Amino acid sequence: MLPTAIMEELQSEFLNWQGLGFSVMEVSHRHSLFLDLLADTESRLRDLLNIPTEYKVLFLSGSARIQFAMIPMNLLTDDMTAGYWISGLWSKSAYEEAKTIKSVYPMDSFSPRHDVILPNTRYIYCVPNETVDGIRLGTLPQYENTYWVADMTSSLLTEPIDVQQYGLIFAGTQKNIAPAGLTIVIIRESILLSQLEHLPKVLSYEAHIKANSVLTTLPTWNCYVANKVLQWMQRENGVETLYKRNCQKAELLYQYLDQSSHYNAKVQGESRSIVNICFEMVDKTLESRFVKAAEANGLYGLAGHKTVGGLRASLYNAMPIEGVEALIAFMDNFVSEPCA
Amino acid sequence: MLPTAIMEELQSEFLNWQGLGFSVMEVSHRHSLFLDLLADTESRLRDLLNIPTEYKVLFLSGSARIQFAMIPMNLLTDDMTAGYWISGLWSKSAYEEAKTIKSVYPMDSFSPRHDVILPNTRYIYCVPNETVDGIRLGTLPQYENTYWVADMTSSLLTEPIDVQQYGLIFAGTQKNIAPAGLTIVIIRESILLSQLEHLPKVLSYEAHIKANSVLTTLPTWNCYVANKVLQWMQRENGVETLYKRNCQKAELLYQYLDQSSHYNAKVQGESRSIVNICFEMVDKTLESRFVKAAEANGLYGLAGHKTVGGLRASLYNAMPIEGVEALIAFMDNFVSEPCA
Repeated sequence: MLPTAIMEELQSEFLNWQGLGFSVMEVSHRHSLFLDLLADTESRLRDLLNIPTEYKVLFLSGSARIQFAMIPMNLLTDDMTAGYWISGLWSKSAYEEAKTIKSVYPMDSFSPRHDVILPNTRYIYCVPNETVDGIRLGTLPQYENTYWVADMTSSLLTEPIDVQQYGLIFAGTQKNIAPAGLTIVIIRESILLSQLEHLPKVLSYEAHIKANSVLTTLPTWNCYVANKVLQWMQRENGVETLYKRNCQKAELLYQYLDQSSHYNAKVQGESRSIVNICFEMVDKTLESRFVKAAEANGLYGLAGHKTVGGLRASLYNAMPIEGVEALIAFMDNFVSEPCA
Repeated sequence: MLPTAIMEELQSEFLNWQGLGFSVMEVSHRHSLFLDLLADTESRLRDLLNIPTEYKVLFLSGSARIQFAMIPMNLLTDDMTAGYWISGLWSKSAYEEAKTIKSVYPMDSFSPRHDVILPNTRYIYCVPNETVDGIRLGTLPQYENTYWVADMTSSLLTEPIDVQQYGLIFAGTQKNIAPAGLTIVIIRESILLSQLEHLPKVLSYEAHIKANSVLTTLPTWNCYVANKVLQWMQRENGVETLYKRNCQKAELLYQYLDQSSHYNAKVQGESRSIVNICFEMVDKTLESRFVKAAEANGLYGLAGHKTVGGLRASLYNAMPIEGVEALIAFMDNFVSEPCA
């Protein structure tokens, strides 16, 4: 979901962006009107995340999954390798994709130890928040001569990060930033290899950097919504404030789950995600009815991902605490009269 | 631009899609609500273009340019080749990308002859309407043991086509179908190779077909707008009617250019595009002032592409004939008082 205040603003400007008499959807991605918007969006993102100048910010058309291929293609030569810290579905998927392209290896211990790092490891890939599994990595260990590559699709801008810890961060925008269809890449320029085999331009970070993100046709609408959402985040006092709220929301739901005799949280302790709370019913046969009844009560998106089943509440930035309270009230009501 | 009637409909449903109290932008691409919309969109497209059942239709997140890489990656093994009929910027760009991936060759005669087809040519690539150059190919020659692959980004649904002439058709949606950020691929299943080297899943047509277009996160908003636009096209009596209108609009502008002593059409005869009319001023020094004055009169997007300069009017489906009349009136006025 997007913040309600933003949605109303988008609707009011829908037919008449900047008083021009048409929609931002109808503007060419090469027009200065759009390029100004894009530059402003980048500067707001840099401000919110304190992105150092040695990092480039790319806005790329399409879903984040293409990064699973671009990362090994751009960041590894044949004599290099990379470790993939497998903590859930998305790190596993990225590893499966990467190994069709280069020689990479899995690190499937829960917190990878120094002694499992192979020679010539260029980067270590991680998913700080596993969207499907509801698992959060917490503090990342530091290794010499490597850098972190992080898929932050579900966590970017939900909590403070130190960008300098990473060589590359990417995020599909559909969780916290804009509608599906746009991917943000934050990349330390010095990690780009100078002697790469021929890469198709459309898959080359260097080509996208050279083209200032407009090598391909950018989705102007998504960039515009991202700009509005970043403005909203700035007005809300930035990522620290959003993080505190996200912690409060998560704590409220975990507390309810932990005292409940009908629902169980699937993840315990430090590994609990603050934005994707996975749980299940003690009587699992009630779960599909739960999802339907929730929708009838206006609560959508509570089914767990098809690969893991169960239930999941995604409490991204735009979800107000009232949404969590409504969910808990519904959950309570459902177990007192599950057939209603 | 999108049809005005559609824009108003989109605005009215913006906060409350299907009476659900939220926007289609906020719906998961895996929810049955969206999957139903996607199936309906496909069926409307099949109806409008008479797509035979042996063709699959894919909706892919992102810009069309990734097809420049996916096509040779998916359709050629190392002992095959492909011809690229170079008629303008986009066919040239696709060729440049393809040759970094496989052994392909250019066909740069204006209408490629049979004797230039090399042995083991699997497909011939073409751009039936070159958006930047305003060039239309017209009837395609037929060759044995090959099939056509066509980039129809600017022409799909602007004129009738016989899908069976092609092995693969693709189009970014931003010209005639939906906002930038979605690509449609129509592919004859029998052209897929069974013994391909390892391809990353995200770049494999087969993987996208298996996943029914939801391997990656689809831009739900763009699919929804596409659905509305296809409905509009059906109400307008389909592609034949749109084609007739497009011909009328183009004829009106070409007639004006051909009789003018201030403006020249850049393309002559059969090769003239019916949707991208490229022209220039006899006094080329006036062109940048022309673009600015046009914008001040509410006429946007008249600058030629930066690679070719000059001027260009794009008369896609949504442009009413009144838009062309307004352009001609402005052009006439501008040359009578160019400094106004």
